[in-house]
Amino acid sequence: MSAPRTVAELGEFGLIERIARGLPSPPDGEIWSGDDAAVLPRPPGDLVVSTDVLVEDVDFSTSWASGADVGWKAVAANLSDLAAMGAFPWRAVATLALPSTTSIEFVDRVIEGIVAAASVHQLGLVGGDISRADKIVLGLTVLGLVEGPVVARSGAREGDGIYVTGRLGGARAGLDILRGASDVSEEHRDALVARQLRPTARVQEGGALRRAGATAMIDVSDGLIADLTHLLDASGLGCRLDPDLVPVDDGVPDPGYALYGGEDLELLFTMPPGREAAAESVGATRIGVSAREGRSLGDIAFEDLEGAGWDHLRGR
Amino acid sequence: MSAPRTVAELGEFGLIERIARGLPSPPDGEIWSGDDAAVLPRPPGDLVVSTDVLVEDVDFSTSWASGADVGWKAVAANLSDLAAMGAFPWRAVATLALPSTTSIEFVDRVIEGIVAAASVHQLGLVGGDISRADKIVLGLTVLGLVEGPVVARSGAREGDGIYVTGRLGGARAGLDILRGASDVSEEHRDALVARQLRPTARVQEGGALRRAGATAMIDVSDGLIADLTHLLDASGLGCRLDPDLVPVDDGVPDPGYALYGGEDLELLFTMPPGREAAAESVGATRIGVSAREGRSLGDIAFEDLEGAGWDHLRGR
Repeated sequence: MSAPRTVAELGEFGLIERIARGLPSPPDGEIWSGDDAAVLPRPPGDLVVSTDVLVEDVDFSTSWASGADVGWKAVAANLSDLAAMGAFPWRAVATLALPSTTSIEFVDRVIEGIVAAASVHQLGLVGGDISRADKIVLGLTVLGLVEGPVVARSGAREGDGIYVTGRLGGARAGLDILRGASDVSEEHRDALVARQLRPTARVQEGGALRRAGATAMIDVSDGLIADLTHLLDASGLGCRLDPDLVPVDDGVPDPGYALYGGEDLELLFTMPPGREAAAESVGATRIGVSAREGRSLGDIAFEDLEGAGWDHLRGR
Repeated sequence: MSAPRTVAELGEFGLIERIARGLPSPPDGEIWSGDDAAVLPRPPGDLVVSTDVLVEDVDFSTSWASGADVGWKAVAANLSDLAAMGAFPWRAVATLALPSTTSIEFVDRVIEGIVAAASVHQLGLVGGDISRADKIVLGLTVLGLVEGPVVARSGAREGDGIYVTGRLGGARAGLDILRGASDVSEEHRDALVARQLRPTARVQEGGALRRAGATAMIDVSDGLIADLTHLLDASGLGCRLDPDLVPVDDGVPDPGYALYGGEDLELLFTMPPGREAAAESVGATRIGVSAREGRSLGDIAFEDLEGAGWDHLRGR
């Protein structure tokens, strides 16, 4: 008999064993895979929990993302949610639903991507579940730790500065390139593709901003305007944004991508007046100020902006 | 404009808001839905984590399971995994991938089923994520609490009695009925269908058995023989099972269902000699004894048994 090539040939329990063999061993006193559930010690702080599901042909395509890209991005998206609360990664569980014809090689690469992204932040993958589906569905739940109050979306106050880490628009431009767009200069293509496939969650920045007194925070996953709207809704505030201050990734062909593109996994936050230095110390840019009412980007009210954030159920 | 009927008409954020409105409020100091991640206080004991994914047309069919049935069963299956470690339910997160044509009514019922099963055990649903897919995929991650050592699969010792709670085979017989089988007497049909659609995790029994000194434990999700094999593999032992002692649900048409059927969510465990009373106090039945080597059911060696447990990737 030749070596199994698809997950159906290997079988559920064979696949679970294969995955478990490739994972790091748990510290003393913890049980990771191989039992009914994972066992973790009493954590040293409060817990922060994030969960995400990525679906083939909705959130990624195997025509342009490798298994390792998919695994990496699932971890990064969850860690970005933790970072937006000011929490640090601790432990994670994953679920994988797969067509029975999926190659074992592909699954190996997904796990490799998860472990690679996790190990950057000392995140332990402690368990999971496998089932069958027509399309690949990867679910990830991450537990984070925080000592002291988190940074919620709702804490911004009138007059706080509005800041964003890094630059925006690159993830959307990278998606265009992966789908065949050619209007991006050669020198920026690799960096923009990496923004889409291998984003980095702003874990250290999120923790530092919590300690530095950020009043509200969210990660840019749906797009700057959409995510700022979530933050301002939760805080009951308006804003004045300066479009010329919004930092845009080099090579992004359409400046609208920085406003509506999403998936950049940068942190969008507010900081009281006088704390500018703390925001700048993590490389963040001031893009505006919160206001009692009215939301505008330069001269344009938010409700007159043409772009929209991504909606998973509508697909736009 | 008429009221939205499908999830695409309502949109991702509308659906999330609708779900959040129907959930209980968090206790002081916790953040459940509405932010980047949920925030939980430092738990009072060690953590036990279980995750499961249920896929339409693999794990359930909407032709015979309602949304509430699907939500209920996802919770029960996870709580059964916690129970098998001797842990008690605490908090949970859910992910739901849905066709854009799914009715809002169906989603309401899924959440209703999750909340109904959760509230029996004071389990709080603290967050989640939504995406689109061709088939319904429900993922659930449950956090449990345990004070003191868990009951692993690996702790059985030679000569320990082998026990199972309740009776077996009902979940598989219920599936037959839902698929149109007619060889079950009218008087048992409702109870057997409930075993398939609305199983109850043995949460109290699992906690009691942990305190009473059970040496190894697993829940019967793949089938008695398959799950006992997992337990004995982990413990490095054999067994002698008495087929006449295996408790079978009333009305089950095929006694093989009690051996291979799966999904009964009963607890299969080992207890040292002299502790029979503790096992019996939770209504468990002694079905055999663990042995240094060799595994047999009556006169038949396990390797000669014809049935097999469920394998998600092979679909048998």
